[in-house]
Amino acid sequence: MYTRAKLIAQIRSKKSFLCVGLDTDIQKIPKHLLDQPDPIFAFNKAIIDATSEFCVSYKINTAFFEAMGAQGWESMKKTFDYIPKDCLSIADAKRGDIGNTSDQYAKAFFETLGADSVTLAPYMGNDSIAPFFKYNGKFGIVLALTSNPGSADYEQQKIGDEFLFEKVLKNTCQLGTPENLMFVVGATKPQEFEIIRKHAQDHFLLVPGVGAQGGSLTEVVKFGRNADIGLLINASRSIIYASSGKDFAEAAALEAKILQEAMAVYC
Amino acid sequence: MYTRAKLIAQIRSKKSFLCVGLDTDIQKIPKHLLDQPDPIFAFNKAIIDATSEFCVSYKINTAFFEAMGAQGWESMKKTFDYIPKDCLSIADAKRGDIGNTSDQYAKAFFETLGADSVTLAPYMGNDSIAPFFKYNGKFGIVLALTSNPGSADYEQQKIGDEFLFEKVLKNTCQLGTPENLMFVVGATKPQEFEIIRKHAQDHFLLVPGVGAQGGSLTEVVKFGRNADIGLLINASRSIIYASSGKDFAEAAALEAKILQEAMAVYC
Repeated sequence: MYTRAKLIAQIRSKKSFLCVGLDTDIQKIPKHLLDQPDPIFAFNKAIIDATSEFCVSYKINTAFFEAMGAQGWESMKKTFDYIPKDCLSIADAKRGDIGNTSDQYAKAFFETLGADSVTLAPYMGNDSIAPFFKYNGKFGIVLALTSNPGSADYEQQKIGDEFLFEKVLKNTCQLGTPENLMFVVGATKPQEFEIIRKHAQDHFLLVPGVGAQGGSLTEVVKFGRNADIGLLINASRSIIYASSGKDFAEAAALEAKILQEAMAVYC
Repeated sequence: MYTRAKLIAQIRSKKSFLCVGLDTDIQKIPKHLLDQPDPIFAFNKAIIDATSEFCVSYKINTAFFEAMGAQGWESMKKTFDYIPKDCLSIADAKRGDIGNTSDQYAKAFFETLGADSVTLAPYMGNDSIAPFFKYNGKFGIVLALTSNPGSADYEQQKIGDEFLFEKVLKNTCQLGTPENLMFVVGATKPQEFEIIRKHAQDHFLLVPGVGAQGGSLTEVVKFGRNADIGLLINASRSIIYASSGKDFAEAAALEAKILQEAMAVYC
Protein backbone atom coordinates (compact mmCIF):
# COMPACT_ATOMS: atom_id res chain seq x y z
CA MET A 1 0.00 0.00 0.00
CA TYR A 2 1.61 3.24 -1.18
CA THR A 3 -0.29 6.46 -1.76
CA ARG A 4 0.35 9.71 -3.56
CA ALA A 5 -0.03 11.59 -0.27
CA LYS A 6 2.67 9.43 1.30
CA LEU A 7 5.03 10.12 -1.59
CA ILE A 8 4.47 13.88 -1.33
CA ALA A 9 5.05 13.77 2.42
CA GLN A 10 8.33 11.88 1.88
CA ILE A 11 9.47 14.41 -0.70
CA ARG A 12 8.79 17.29 1.70
CA SER A 13 10.43 15.51 4.59
CA LYS A 14 13.58 14.28 2.82
CA LYS A 15 13.76 17.32 0.55
CA SER A 16 14.33 14.98 -2.35
CA PHE A 17 12.49 13.56 -5.32
CA LEU A 18 15.32 11.23 -6.25
CA CYS A 19 14.71 7.67 -7.40
CA VAL A 20 17.74 5.40 -7.28
CA GLY A 21 17.76 2.90 -10.15
CA LEU A 22 19.04 -0.58 -9.38
CA ASP A 23 20.34 -1.78 -12.77
CA THR A 24 22.45 -4.32 -10.96
CA ASP A 25 24.84 -6.08 -13.30
CA ILE A 26 26.97 -8.95 -11.99
CA GLN A 27 29.72 -7.82 -14.44
CA LYS A 28 29.88 -4.35 -12.92
CA ILE A 29 29.56 -4.80 -9.17
CA PRO A 30 32.75 -4.69 -7.07
CA LYS A 31 34.72 -7.92 -7.31
CA HIS A 32 34.97 -8.39 -3.54
CA LEU A 33 31.21 -9.06 -3.41
CA LEU A 34 31.41 -12.08 -5.69
CA ASP A 35 32.22 -14.44 -2.82
CA GLN A 36 28.96 -13.53 -1.06
CA PRO A 37 26.15 -16.15 -1.27
CA ASP A 38 23.99 -13.64 -3.21
CA PRO A 39 26.30 -10.93 -4.59
CA ILE A 40 23.46 -9.09 -6.37
CA PHE A 41 21.42 -8.74 -3.20
CA ALA A 42 24.52 -7.90 -1.14
CA PHE A 43 25.23 -5.04 -3.55
CA ASN A 44 21.61 -3.79 -3.56
CA LYS A 45 21.40 -3.96 0.24
CA ALA A 46 24.57 -1.90 0.65
CA ILE A 47 23.38 0.66 -1.92
CA ILE A 48 19.98 0.95 -0.22
CA ASP A 49 21.53 1.32 3.24
CA ALA A 50 23.84 4.04 1.93
CA THR A 51 21.31 6.05 -0.10
CA SER A 52 17.91 5.74 1.57
CA GLU A 53 18.19 9.03 3.45
CA PHE A 54 18.67 10.88 0.14
CA CYS A 55 15.94 9.35 -2.02
CA VAL A 56 12.21 8.62 -1.93
CA SER A 57 12.08 5.73 -4.39
CA TYR A 58 13.98 2.73 -5.75
CA LYS A 59 13.52 1.46 -9.28
CA ILE A 60 14.45 -2.14 -9.99
CA ASN A 61 15.26 -2.81 -13.63
CA THR A 62 13.85 -6.32 -14.04
CA ALA A 63 15.94 -7.14 -17.14
CA PHE A 64 19.16 -7.31 -15.15
CA PHE A 65 17.62 -9.80 -12.74
CA GLU A 66 15.92 -11.91 -15.41
CA ALA A 67 19.28 -12.26 -17.16
CA MET A 68 20.26 -14.37 -14.14
CA GLY A 69 17.21 -16.63 -14.33
CA ALA A 70 15.42 -17.99 -11.28
CA GLN A 71 18.31 -16.96 -9.03
CA GLY A 72 17.92 -13.40 -10.31
CA TRP A 73 14.23 -13.44 -9.39
CA GLU A 74 15.20 -14.60 -5.93
CA SER A 75 17.60 -11.63 -5.61
CA MET A 76 14.90 -9.33 -6.96
CA LYS A 77 12.36 -10.56 -4.40
CA LYS A 78 14.85 -10.07 -1.56
CA THR A 79 15.56 -6.55 -2.82
CA PHE A 80 11.88 -5.59 -2.96
CA ASP A 81 11.46 -6.93 0.57
CA TYR A 82 14.44 -4.87 1.74
CA ILE A 83 13.39 -1.50 0.27
CA PRO A 84 12.32 0.72 3.22
CA LYS A 85 8.54 1.05 3.45
CA ASP A 86 8.74 4.85 3.28
CA CYS A 87 10.20 4.60 -0.25
CA LEU A 88 8.10 3.88 -3.34
CA SER A 89 9.34 0.67 -4.96
CA ILE A 90 9.16 0.52 -8.75
CA ALA A 91 9.43 -2.59 -10.91
CA ASP A 92 10.77 -1.20 -14.18
CA ALA A 93 9.39 -4.02 -16.29
CA LYS A 94 7.54 -2.31 -19.17
CA ARG A 95 4.86 -4.99 -19.37
CA GLY A 96 1.59 -4.98 -21.31
CA ASP A 97 -0.40 -7.80 -22.95
CA ILE A 98 -3.95 -9.02 -23.52
CA GLY A 99 -6.18 -8.90 -20.45
CA ASN A 100 -5.80 -12.36 -18.97
CA THR A 101 -2.03 -12.16 -19.43
CA SER A 102 -1.76 -8.69 -17.90
CA ASP A 103 -3.73 -10.04 -14.94
CA GLN A 104 -0.85 -12.45 -14.41
CA TYR A 105 1.79 -9.74 -14.75
CA ALA A 106 -0.06 -7.60 -12.22
CA LYS A 107 -0.09 -10.58 -9.88
CA ALA A 108 3.63 -11.17 -10.50
CA PHE A 109 4.67 -7.63 -9.62
CA PHE A 110 2.07 -6.46 -7.10
CA GLU A 111 1.46 -9.71 -5.24
CA THR A 112 4.37 -12.13 -5.70
CA LEU A 113 7.16 -9.51 -5.70
CA GLY A 114 5.30 -6.94 -3.60
CA ALA A 115 6.24 -3.92 -5.73
CA ASP A 116 4.36 -0.66 -5.13
CA SER A 117 4.37 0.15 -8.85
CA VAL A 118 5.29 -1.21 -12.26
CA THR A 119 6.15 0.45 -15.57
CA LEU A 120 3.86 -0.41 -18.49
CA ALA A 121 4.17 -0.38 -22.31
CA PRO A 122 0.96 0.85 -23.98
CA TYR A 123 1.43 -0.33 -27.59
CA MET A 124 -1.46 -2.84 -27.48
CA GLY A 125 -3.91 -0.25 -26.16
CA ASN A 126 -5.83 0.54 -23.00
CA ASP A 127 -7.22 -2.95 -22.38
CA SER A 128 -3.66 -4.31 -22.31
CA ILE A 129 -2.72 -2.24 -19.24
CA ALA A 130 -6.12 -1.91 -17.54
CA PRO A 131 -5.62 -4.88 -15.15
CA PHE A 132 -2.84 -3.01 -13.33
CA PHE A 133 -5.29 -0.31 -12.20
CA LYS A 134 -7.59 -2.68 -10.33
CA TYR A 135 -5.28 -2.71 -7.31
CA ASN A 136 -5.67 -0.39 -4.38
CA GLY A 137 -2.53 1.44 -3.22
CA LYS A 138 -0.48 0.43 -6.28
CA PHE A 139 0.64 2.51 -9.26
CA GLY A 140 0.87 1.78 -12.96
CA ILE A 141 3.58 3.95 -14.56
CA VAL A 142 2.87 4.16 -18.28
CA LEU A 143 5.48 4.87 -20.96
CA ALA A 144 4.58 8.15 -22.64
CA LEU A 145 7.63 9.93 -24.04
CA THR A 146 11.01 8.28 -23.56
CA SER A 147 14.48 9.78 -23.92
CA ASN A 148 16.07 7.30 -26.33
CA PRO A 149 16.59 8.22 -30.02
CA GLY A 150 13.92 5.66 -31.00
CA SER A 151 11.25 7.83 -29.36
CA ALA A 152 11.19 9.62 -32.74
CA ASP A 153 10.06 6.41 -34.51
CA TYR A 154 6.54 6.29 -33.04
CA GLU A 155 6.09 8.25 -29.80
CA GLN A 156 6.80 11.58 -31.47
CA GLN A 157 4.84 10.81 -34.64
CA LYS A 158 1.57 12.62 -35.18
CA ILE A 159 -1.83 10.95 -35.29
CA GLY A 160 -4.12 13.65 -36.62
CA ASP A 161 -3.02 16.76 -34.76
CA GLU A 162 -1.73 14.89 -31.71
CA PHE A 163 1.54 13.12 -31.00
CA LEU A 164 1.27 9.41 -30.23
CA PHE A 165 2.61 10.06 -26.72
CA GLU A 166 -0.12 12.65 -26.27
CA LYS A 167 -2.78 10.15 -27.29
CA VAL A 168 -1.29 7.71 -24.77
CA LEU A 169 -1.53 10.33 -22.03
CA LYS A 170 -5.16 11.11 -22.86
CA ASN A 171 -6.32 7.52 -23.26
CA THR A 172 -4.52 6.28 -20.18
CA CYS A 173 -6.03 9.00 -18.01
CA GLN A 174 -9.35 7.18 -18.56
CA LEU A 175 -7.93 4.16 -16.72
CA GLY A 176 -6.59 5.78 -13.60
CA THR A 177 -6.19 8.94 -11.57
CA PRO A 178 -3.12 10.66 -10.10
CA GLU A 179 -3.68 8.35 -7.12
CA ASN A 180 -2.71 5.22 -9.08
CA LEU A 181 -1.26 6.40 -12.40
CA MET A 182 2.08 7.97 -13.29
CA PHE A 183 3.89 8.41 -16.59
CA VAL A 184 7.43 7.76 -17.79
CA VAL A 185 8.59 11.00 -19.38
CA GLY A 186 12.07 11.53 -20.75
CA ALA A 187 11.29 15.00 -22.02
CA THR A 188 13.61 17.94 -21.60
CA LYS A 189 12.09 20.42 -24.02
CA PRO A 190 9.64 23.00 -22.64
CA GLN A 191 7.14 22.38 -25.48
CA GLU A 192 7.03 18.68 -24.60
CA PHE A 193 6.37 19.32 -20.92
CA GLU A 194 3.67 21.78 -21.87
CA ILE A 195 1.84 19.01 -23.75
CA ILE A 196 2.43 16.52 -20.97
CA ARG A 197 1.23 18.77 -18.16
CA LYS A 198 -1.82 19.73 -20.20
CA HIS A 199 -3.04 16.13 -19.98
CA ALA A 200 -1.37 15.03 -16.77
CA GLN A 201 -1.47 18.06 -14.55
CA ASP A 202 -1.48 16.31 -11.18
CA HIS A 203 0.24 13.06 -12.06
CA PHE A 204 3.73 12.16 -10.97
CA LEU A 205 6.21 11.77 -13.81
CA LEU A 206 9.06 9.30 -13.61
CA VAL A 207 11.94 10.97 -15.42
CA PRO A 208 14.90 8.82 -16.42
CA GLY A 209 18.10 10.06 -17.94
CA VAL A 210 19.52 12.38 -15.31
CA GLY A 211 23.10 11.38 -14.62
CA ALA A 212 24.74 8.78 -16.88
CA GLN A 213 22.26 9.54 -19.66
CA GLY A 214 23.11 13.24 -19.45
CA GLY A 215 19.78 14.94 -18.71
CA SER A 216 19.66 18.22 -16.85
CA LEU A 217 17.95 18.38 -13.47
CA THR A 218 17.39 22.12 -13.69
CA GLU A 219 15.59 21.94 -17.03
CA VAL A 220 13.39 19.05 -15.96
CA VAL A 221 12.33 20.80 -12.77
CA LYS A 222 11.81 24.12 -14.51
CA PHE A 223 9.43 22.73 -17.10
CA GLY A 224 8.05 19.58 -15.49
CA ARG A 225 7.16 20.21 -11.86
CA ASN A 226 3.69 20.86 -10.55
CA ALA A 227 2.34 22.11 -7.20
CA ASP A 228 3.32 18.87 -5.45
CA ILE A 229 6.66 18.65 -7.28
CA GLY A 230 5.09 15.79 -9.28
CA LEU A 231 8.46 14.43 -10.38
CA LEU A 232 10.51 11.38 -9.56
CA ILE A 233 13.92 11.82 -11.10
CA ASN A 234 15.85 8.64 -11.61
CA ALA A 235 19.59 8.13 -11.64
CA SER A 236 20.98 4.63 -11.93
CA ARG A 237 24.53 4.07 -13.14
CA SER A 238 25.93 7.42 -11.99
CA ILE A 239 25.02 6.47 -8.42
CA ILE A 240 25.38 2.72 -8.11
CA TYR A 241 28.62 2.47 -10.10
CA ALA A 242 30.19 5.66 -8.74
CA SER A 243 33.07 3.48 -7.54
CA SER A 244 33.99 -0.11 -8.35
CA GLY A 245 36.06 -0.48 -5.21
CA LYS A 246 35.30 -1.34 -1.60
CA ASP A 247 34.05 2.22 -1.12
CA PHE A 248 31.20 1.71 -3.64
CA ALA A 249 28.44 2.34 -1.09
CA GLU A 250 30.03 5.53 0.26
CA ALA A 251 30.61 6.75 -3.28
CA ALA A 252 26.96 6.01 -4.13
CA ALA A 253 25.81 7.90 -1.04
CA LEU A 254 27.91 10.89 -2.07
CA GLU A 255 26.40 10.95 -5.59
CA ALA A 256 22.89 10.58 -4.19
CA LYS A 257 23.56 13.35 -1.68
CA ILE A 258 24.74 15.71 -4.44
CA LEU A 259 21.48 15.16 -6.34
CA GLN A 260 19.39 15.45 -3.17
CA GLU A 261 21.03 18.76 -2.33
CA ALA A 262 20.36 20.04 -5.83
CA MET A 263 16.72 19.03 -5.37
CA ALA A 264 16.34 20.46 -1.86
CA VAL A 265 15.96 24.04 -3.10
CA TYR A 266 12.72 23.06 -4.86
CA CYS A 267 11.12 21.09 -2.00
CA MET B 1 20.08 -22.29 -33.16
CA TYR B 2 16.81 -22.36 -35.13
CA THR B 3 16.51 -21.31 -38.77
CA ARG B 4 13.69 -20.38 -41.10
CA ALA B 5 14.64 -23.33 -43.35
CA LYS B 6 14.28 -25.71 -40.43
CA LEU B 7 10.86 -24.33 -39.57
CA ILE B 8 9.66 -24.70 -43.16
CA ALA B 9 10.99 -28.28 -43.30
CA GLN B 10 9.12 -29.09 -40.07
CA ILE B 11 5.90 -27.63 -41.42
CA ARG B 12 6.17 -29.74 -44.59
CA SER B 13 7.09 -32.86 -42.66
CA LYS B 14 4.46 -32.61 -39.91
CA LYS B 15 1.87 -31.02 -42.22
CA SER B 16 1.19 -28.50 -39.50
CA PHE B 17 1.89 -24.88 -38.70
CA LEU B 18 0.40 -25.11 -35.25
CA CYS B 19 1.97 -23.42 -32.23
CA VAL B 20 0.78 -24.69 -28.86
CA GLY B 21 0.61 -21.91 -26.28
CA LEU B 22 1.59 -22.79 -22.73
CA ASP B 23 -0.38 -20.28 -20.64
CA THR B 24 0.00 -22.56 -17.69
CA ASP B 25 -2.06 -21.41 -14.73
CA ILE B 26 -1.77 -23.24 -11.42
CA GLN B 27 -5.49 -22.46 -10.83
CA LYS B 28 -6.51 -24.25 -14.00
CA ILE B 29 -4.37 -27.36 -14.25
CA PRO B 30 -5.88 -30.69 -13.18
CA LYS B 31 -6.01 -31.03 -9.41
CA HIS B 32 -4.27 -34.42 -9.36
CA LEU B 33 -1.03 -32.73 -10.52
CA LEU B 34 -0.82 -30.50 -7.46
CA ASP B 35 0.96 -33.15 -5.39
CA GLN B 36 3.83 -33.27 -7.90
CA PRO B 37 7.08 -31.52 -6.85
CA ASP B 38 6.68 -29.08 -9.79
CA PRO B 39 3.04 -29.21 -10.96
CA ILE B 40 3.54 -26.53 -13.63
CA PHE B 41 6.38 -28.43 -15.27
CA ALA B 42 4.57 -31.76 -14.88
CA PHE B 43 1.62 -30.27 -16.75
CA ASN B 44 3.78 -28.74 -19.50
CA LYS B 45 5.75 -31.96 -19.95
CA ALA B 46 2.58 -34.01 -20.37
CA ILE B 47 1.13 -31.48 -22.83
CA ILE B 48 4.35 -31.43 -24.85
CA ASP B 49 4.58 -35.23 -24.92
CA ALA B 50 0.97 -35.46 -26.09
CA THR B 51 1.03 -32.71 -28.74
CA SER B 52 4.54 -32.58 -30.25
CA GLU B 53 3.63 -34.71 -33.26
CA PHE B 54 0.92 -32.22 -34.23
CA CYS B 55 2.73 -28.91 -33.85
CA VAL B 56 5.94 -27.18 -34.92
CA SER B 57 6.24 -24.66 -32.11
CA TYR B 58 5.56 -24.00 -28.43
CA LYS B 59 4.90 -20.55 -27.06
CA ILE B 60 5.53 -19.96 -23.38
CA ASN B 61 3.57 -17.06 -21.93
CA THR B 62 6.08 -15.67 -19.44
CA ALA B 63 3.46 -13.81 -17.35
CA PHE B 64 1.99 -17.04 -15.99
CA PHE B 65 5.41 -18.18 -14.81
CA GLU B 66 6.46 -14.80 -13.39
CA ALA B 67 3.28 -14.79 -11.32
CA MET B 68 4.89 -17.69 -9.41
CA GLY B 69 8.17 -15.86 -8.79
CA ALA B 70 11.56 -17.56 -8.81
CA GLN B 71 9.89 -20.98 -8.70
CA GLY B 72 7.97 -20.06 -11.84
CA TRP B 73 11.20 -19.17 -13.62
CA GLU B 74 12.59 -22.54 -12.61
CA SER B 75 9.53 -24.24 -14.16
CA MET B 76 9.89 -22.05 -17.25
CA LYS B 77 13.57 -23.00 -17.66
CA LYS B 78 12.73 -26.72 -17.34
CA THR B 79 9.98 -26.30 -19.93
CA PHE B 80 12.28 -24.58 -22.45
CA ASP B 81 14.83 -27.35 -21.92
CA TYR B 82 12.14 -29.98 -22.52
CA ILE B 83 10.72 -28.57 -25.77
CA PRO B 84 11.83 -30.91 -28.60
CA LYS B 85 14.67 -29.40 -30.64
CA ASP B 86 12.69 -29.74 -33.87
CA CYS B 87 10.08 -27.30 -32.53
CA LEU B 88 10.60 -23.54 -32.44
CA SER B 89 10.41 -22.33 -28.84
CA ILE B 90 8.89 -18.90 -28.29
CA ALA B 91 9.13 -16.79 -25.15
CA ASP B 92 5.98 -14.67 -25.32
CA ALA B 93 7.38 -11.87 -23.20
CA LYS B 94 6.68 -8.66 -25.17
CA ARG B 95 9.86 -6.95 -24.01
CA GLY B 96 11.47 -3.75 -25.27
CA ASP B 97 13.53 -1.08 -23.48
CA ILE B 98 16.53 1.20 -23.93
CA GLY B 99 19.58 -0.48 -25.47
CA ASN B 100 21.57 -1.59 -22.43
CA THR B 101 18.39 -2.95 -20.83
CA SER B 102 17.26 -4.80 -23.96
CA ASP B 103 20.75 -6.35 -24.07
CA GLN B 104 19.93 -7.88 -20.70
CA TYR B 105 16.50 -9.09 -21.83
CA ALA B 106 18.07 -10.70 -24.90
CA LYS B 107 20.54 -12.41 -22.60
CA ALA B 108 17.71 -13.54 -20.28
CA PHE B 109 15.67 -15.17 -23.05
CA PHE B 110 18.25 -16.32 -25.61
CA GLU B 111 21.07 -17.33 -23.26
CA THR B 112 19.77 -18.00 -19.75
CA LEU B 113 16.45 -19.57 -20.78
CA GLY B 114 17.63 -20.84 -24.17
CA ALA B 115 14.53 -19.73 -26.12
CA ASP B 116 14.73 -19.73 -29.92
CA SER B 117 12.67 -16.56 -30.14
CA VAL B 118 11.03 -13.84 -28.08
CA THR B 119 8.10 -11.49 -28.70
CA LEU B 120 8.90 -7.77 -28.61
CA ALA B 121 6.91 -4.56 -27.99
CA PRO B 122 8.02 -1.74 -30.32
CA TYR B 123 6.55 1.35 -28.59
CA MET B 124 9.96 2.86 -27.71
CA GLY B 125 11.24 2.54 -31.31
CA ASN B 126 13.77 0.58 -33.27
CA ASP B 127 16.73 1.04 -30.93
CA SER B 128 14.67 -0.52 -28.11
CA ILE B 129 14.40 -3.87 -29.90
CA ALA B 130 17.61 -3.84 -31.97
CA PRO B 131 19.71 -5.85 -29.45
CA PHE B 132 17.55 -8.94 -30.07
CA PHE B 133 18.68 -9.10 -33.70
CA LYS B 134 22.39 -9.42 -32.91
CA TYR B 135 22.01 -13.14 -32.22
CA ASN B 136 22.59 -15.80 -34.85
CA GLY B 137 19.87 -18.47 -35.18
CA LYS B 138 17.39 -16.61 -32.95
CA PHE B 139 14.21 -14.73 -33.87
CA GLY B 140 12.68 -11.50 -32.65
CA ILE B 141 8.89 -11.57 -33.09
CA VAL B 142 7.63 -8.00 -33.11
CA LEU B 143 4.09 -6.92 -32.19
CA ALA B 144 2.49 -5.39 -35.26
CA LEU B 145 -1.29 -5.76 -35.25
CA THR B 146 -2.87 -7.56 -32.33
CA SER B 147 -6.36 -9.01 -32.01
CA ASN B 148 -7.52 -7.36 -28.78
CA PRO B 149 -10.03 -4.46 -28.87
CA GLY B 150 -7.25 -2.09 -27.71
CA SER B 151 -5.49 -2.52 -31.05
CA ALA B 152 -7.80 0.29 -32.21
CA ASP B 153 -6.27 2.70 -29.66
CA TYR B 154 -2.87 3.07 -31.36
CA GLU B 155 -1.96 0.20 -33.72
CA GLN B 156 -4.80 0.99 -36.11
CA GLN B 157 -4.39 4.75 -35.91
CA LYS B 158 -3.00 6.56 -38.93
CA ILE B 159 0.30 8.40 -39.00
CA GLY B 160 0.21 10.33 -42.26
CA ASP B 161 -1.22 7.85 -44.74
CA GLU B 162 0.05 4.76 -42.89
CA PHE B 163 -1.31 2.83 -39.93
CA LEU B 164 0.98 2.69 -36.89
CA PHE B 165 1.25 -1.10 -37.31
CA GLU B 166 2.35 -0.51 -40.90
CA LYS B 167 5.05 1.88 -39.79
CA VAL B 168 6.20 -0.75 -37.28
CA LEU B 169 6.41 -3.34 -40.07
CA LYS B 170 8.43 -1.02 -42.29
CA ASN B 171 10.81 0.26 -39.61
CA THR B 172 11.41 -3.14 -38.10
CA CYS B 173 12.30 -4.65 -41.47
CA GLN B 174 15.40 -2.45 -41.31
CA LEU B 175 16.56 -4.38 -38.25
CA GLY B 176 16.22 -7.92 -39.47
CA THR B 177 15.37 -10.25 -42.33
CA PRO B 178 12.90 -13.14 -42.64
CA GLU B 179 15.76 -15.25 -41.26
CA ASN B 180 15.58 -13.64 -37.82
CA LEU B 181 12.42 -11.52 -37.75
CA MET B 182 8.74 -12.45 -37.48
CA PHE B 183 5.66 -10.42 -36.61
CA VAL B 184 2.72 -10.92 -34.28
CA VAL B 185 -0.37 -10.42 -36.38
CA GLY B 186 -3.89 -10.88 -35.07
CA ALA B 187 -5.49 -9.78 -38.32
CA THR B 188 -8.43 -11.54 -39.87
CA LYS B 189 -9.52 -8.96 -42.44
CA PRO B 190 -8.24 -9.34 -46.00
CA GLN B 191 -7.34 -5.63 -46.24
CA GLU B 192 -5.14 -5.94 -43.17
CA PHE B 193 -3.25 -8.95 -44.51
CA GLU B 194 -2.77 -7.14 -47.78
CA ILE B 195 -0.94 -4.34 -45.95
CA ILE B 196 1.02 -6.78 -43.85
CA ARG B 197 2.17 -8.94 -46.74
CA LYS B 198 3.13 -5.84 -48.72
CA HIS B 199 5.82 -5.08 -46.13
CA ALA B 200 6.53 -8.56 -44.82
CA GLN B 201 6.21 -10.80 -47.83
CA ASP B 202 8.56 -13.57 -46.74
CA HIS B 203 8.34 -13.23 -42.97
CA PHE B 204 6.61 -15.70 -40.73
CA LEU B 205 3.62 -14.31 -38.87
CA LEU B 206 2.69 -15.52 -35.42
CA VAL B 207 -1.11 -15.45 -35.33
CA PRO B 208 -2.81 -15.68 -31.95
CA GLY B 209 -6.49 -15.98 -31.37
CA VAL B 210 -7.47 -19.19 -33.12
CA GLY B 211 -9.38 -21.34 -30.70
CA ALA B 212 -10.47 -19.82 -27.38
CA GLN B 213 -10.21 -16.29 -28.80
CA GLY B 214 -12.46 -17.28 -31.71
CA GLY B 215 -10.38 -16.58 -34.83
CA SER B 216 -10.99 -18.55 -38.01
CA LEU B 217 -8.20 -20.74 -39.37
CA THR B 218 -9.61 -20.70 -42.88
CA GLU B 219 -9.69 -16.91 -43.11
CA VAL B 220 -6.17 -16.51 -41.72
CA VAL B 221 -4.73 -19.03 -44.17
CA LYS B 222 -6.67 -17.63 -47.09
CA PHE B 223 -5.41 -14.10 -46.63
CA GLY B 224 -2.16 -14.53 -44.70
CA ARG B 225 -0.13 -17.38 -46.12
CA ASN B 226 2.82 -16.99 -48.45
CA ALA B 227 4.78 -19.47 -50.62
CA ASP B 228 6.35 -21.10 -47.55
CA ILE B 229 3.07 -20.99 -45.58
CA GLY B 230 4.67 -18.23 -43.52
CA LEU B 231 2.25 -18.66 -40.64
CA LEU B 232 2.47 -20.00 -37.13
CA ILE B 233 -1.03 -20.26 -35.75
CA ASN B 234 -1.26 -20.35 -32.01
CA ALA B 235 -3.87 -21.99 -29.85
CA SER B 236 -3.45 -21.99 -26.09
CA ARG B 237 -6.44 -22.50 -23.83
CA SER B 238 -8.52 -24.53 -26.30
CA ILE B 239 -5.76 -27.14 -26.33
CA ILE B 240 -4.16 -27.17 -22.91
CA TYR B 241 -7.42 -26.90 -20.96
CA ALA B 242 -9.48 -29.17 -23.22
CA SER B 243 -10.10 -31.30 -20.15
CA SER B 244 -9.52 -30.63 -16.47
CA GLY B 245 -9.49 -34.31 -15.61
CA LYS B 246 -6.89 -37.05 -15.65
CA ASP B 247 -7.33 -37.29 -19.42
CA PHE B 248 -6.09 -33.69 -19.96
CA ALA B 249 -3.11 -34.73 -22.09
CA GLU B 250 -5.18 -36.99 -24.36
CA ALA B 251 -7.82 -34.28 -24.70
CA ALA B 252 -5.07 -31.77 -25.60
CA ALA B 253 -3.67 -34.17 -28.20
CA LEU B 254 -7.11 -34.54 -29.73
CA GLU B 255 -7.62 -30.77 -30.02
CA ALA B 256 -4.12 -30.33 -31.47
CA LYS B 257 -4.78 -33.15 -33.94
CA ILE B 258 -8.02 -31.52 -35.12
CA LEU B 259 -6.15 -28.30 -35.86
CA GLN B 260 -3.25 -30.16 -37.49
CA GLU B 261 -5.64 -32.01 -39.79
CA ALA B 262 -7.32 -28.76 -40.75
CA MET B 263 -3.86 -27.37 -41.57
CA ALA B 264 -2.62 -30.44 -43.48
CA VAL B 265 -4.56 -29.57 -46.62
CA TYR B 266 -2.47 -26.42 -47.04
CA CYS B 267 0.98 -27.98 -46.40
